[in-house]
Amino acid sequence: MTLEEASGELKKHWRPRPKAINLPLDKAGGLILAKDVVSKLDVPPFDRAAVDGYAIRSIDAFAAGEDHPIRLKFVGSLLAGYLPPAEVHAGECLEIATGAPLPMGADAVVMVEHAMARKKTIDIYRAVAPGENVARRTSEIKRGATVLRAGKRLTPPSIGTLAAIGAKMVKVYKRPVVAVISSGAELRVPGSQLGRGQVYDVNGPTICRAVEECGGEAEYLGIAPDKPSQIAKLVKKGLSSCDVVVISGGSSAGSGDIVPSVVDSLGKPGVIVHGLALKPGKPTFVAVARCKPVFGLPGYPVSALIVFDQLVAPYLRSMASLPPIERKIVQATLSTKILSARGRREFVPVQLVRGSEGLIARPILKGSGAITALSAADGYIEVPLEVEIVSECESVKVVLFGGIENA
Amino acid sequence: MTLEEASGELKKHWRPRPKAINLPLDKAGGLILAKDVVSKLDVPPFDRAAVDGYAIRSIDAFAAGEDHPIRLKFVGSLLAGYLPPAEVHAGECLEIATGAPLPMGADAVVMVEHAMARKKTIDIYRAVAPGENVARRTSEIKRGATVLRAGKRLTPPSIGTLAAIGAKMVKVYKRPVVAVISSGAELRVPGSQLGRGQVYDVNGPTICRAVEECGGEAEYLGIAPDKPSQIAKLVKKGLSSCDVVVISGGSSAGSGDIVPSVVDSLGKPGVIVHGLALKPGKPTFVAVARCKPVFGLPGYPVSALIVFDQLVAPYLRSMASLPPIERKIVQATLSTKILSARGRREFVPVQLVRGSEGLIARPILKGSGAITALSAADGYIEVPLEVEIVSECESVKVVLFGGIENA
Repeated sequence: MTLEEASGELKKHWRPRPKAINLPLDKAGGLILAKDVVSKLDVPPFDRAAVDGYAIRSIDAFAAGEDHPIRLKFVGSLLAGYLPPAEVHAGECLEIATGAPLPMGADAVVMVEHAMARKKTIDIYRAVAPGENVARRTSEIKRGATVLRAGKRLTPPSIGTLAAIGAKMVKVYKRPVVAVISSGAELRVPGSQLGRGQVYDVNGPTICRAVEECGGEAEYLGIAPDKPSQIAKLVKKGLSSCDVVVISGGSSAGSGDIVPSVVDSLGKPGVIVHGLALKPGKPTFVAVARCKPVFGLPGYPVSALIVFDQLVAPYLRSMASLPPIERKIVQATLSTKILSARGRREFVPVQLVRGSEGLIARPILKGSGAITALSAADGYIEVPLEVEIVSECESVKVVLFGGIENA
Repeated sequence: MTLEEASGELKKHWRPRPKAINLPLDKAGGLILAKDVVSKLDVPPFDRAAVDGYAIRSIDAFAAGEDHPIRLKFVGSLLAGYLPPAEVHAGECLEIATGAPLPMGADAVVMVEHAMARKKTIDIYRAVAPGENVARRTSEIKRGATVLRAGKRLTPPSIGTLAAIGAKMVKVYKRPVVAVISSGAELRVPGSQLGRGQVYDVNGPTICRAVEECGGEAEYLGIAPDKPSQIAKLVKKGLSSCDVVVISGGSSAGSGDIVPSVVDSLGKPGVIVHGLALKPGKPTFVAVARCKPVFGLPGYPVSALIVFDQLVAPYLRSMASLPPIERKIVQATLSTKILSARGRREFVPVQLVRGSEGLIARPILKGSGAITALSAADGYIEVPLEVEIVSECESVKVVLFGGIENA
């Protein structure tokens, strides 16, 4: 079964449905708005000075000019955040700072550069139109107006817009919570002591980080040894507290065989895909139980990570309503030929090096167990189903994991 | 003073020095390794089966072939994670699962496909070379070898490599912690009740999110009204608990004037840059006190955000040893001419729309107070110091904030 066929099969039993939740503004950045946001207030909520200067009745300074200033009576000063100490009557003015509310009576602000303070009067050297240098109530946002649309990613300016209307909480699509389980009696959690015949769990930490990098939240449930009851217990825990379960197979054939049959017994429809025409990634399985998907990844770290990226990550993005990850692609010359099997799509990790005529892609062929080799890889080449050989010196597209770290 | 001159001035008094800290593996993803990592163990730590099959002495099956199988005595089974139940002597074999330790005596594994189990014996149909189908101890990592170099970003595979060698903690460059303060007596925290003459603090939440998006940690210290003692108290708090202080000016001239003089009094050298040849962003200041930088941003949200992106964000990236943010650039046709002042660099937010002949950039000219306008912007055009006019229909480079959301 190809990746696309597996996705089609899964779609019959489960579809990613983004869940909307209310989050405080400082936790919502980067997420997708689930609902149009309508403002409950005007912004600004009052007419306010847009410059530092003097609030006046514009008609009083109608005749003002450079050579014939108009003298107005000074009736007080007003900083932003305070209430006007006085009304402005005919022939009066009030010193006002940017952001302060326009006092009653005044309809414009003369910039401080166009006025001269005397003892108890101010000379105005330029006429202003009604409303000049005033940020009108509602000029930014009108109460009842939609300020942000559902589907908008909450960038810093959108967070600013929500702050402007006083929003403390915002309805966004939640990050999917992914239970990450590693199965295998030989596995130990990094940091613990290894006994004979034991190795550290590589897939747990790797997949957890991969979940985070694509916008999900990982919950590492730890290691399921190879007893069916132990595997069932952890998968059930994941199904009850998380949105998705990802279990990697451990490297023992025993547990690798047990995992899908245990998962299959946990609810209908159970395992719906078993085996993918993908290298690495053949022993992948997909199940649905209790209306949640369970992805069974291969035990080998490189296989697990590539299958995660290809199969699982797109669903996690959909569940948070996030756009697909945009991977950068560079053109490079292949250093060594690649042989692939017809009827199987293959992903070959490569390291990029700068040659005299551009980038060179060196396949990393250490075998799919070699997580250390993968950490040296800059990206991968995809060899389609029907291609059996990619020749040396051929120009290939390299999908980058991140930047070109080694080039 | 230009942005570059301001950075040069700051460099005389302060340079970003990444700080190395130990973090647990699950908190270190995405950060930069501060130290070469040397493995304290061999990976795999023992010779292990690379396939499911039978562990044998290769010499015993030397003459095996499709038509003339070699019959070996079955002495037990071994799953990964368990210890061999028996040694393999001449003429014997032990069933073994991928990942299980090779038993004493055996030197190769025959794949299960090339063997046939009888009652208490196994027929082997293919010869294997010594070491065949065995993942040798140290074949991935040798004890004492450097597995990751300082400067490496911790991607999922690098996290996997650290897990493989059992690392629980890792030394990385810490995210800089940024104290975010908004000054202005008219400001209230979103979610609280507005009194007359009051508005919500937009800059605090916006800058906090911008800090996070560039890899820092934001600590919102809240609002400093316009009394010098209140401003000094919050800035001092920021200086003592954070790595960088960012204070935005509030929109009142009163506090705008007070902030730099208060900061200047908190330690030598105090304010070293005041005023930038930048639109928006003129009232920016930069200070150093107690060996930490204090950035004073304009009160207007659009100005504050653009100055943050241009001036502050690159330092935060350096402090975490992260590479500069790569912003995507698209070419577009300007819809309306832009007038700029000579001797001032200007950043003009634009919205992109798809026209029949490509992208059209529409300047958003609502004034720098309009955070709501900025949230509709896809990016900005930069008008250099010496340019006074950018004509309608001119082809311009638009630096994207994120994706093209409105096009």
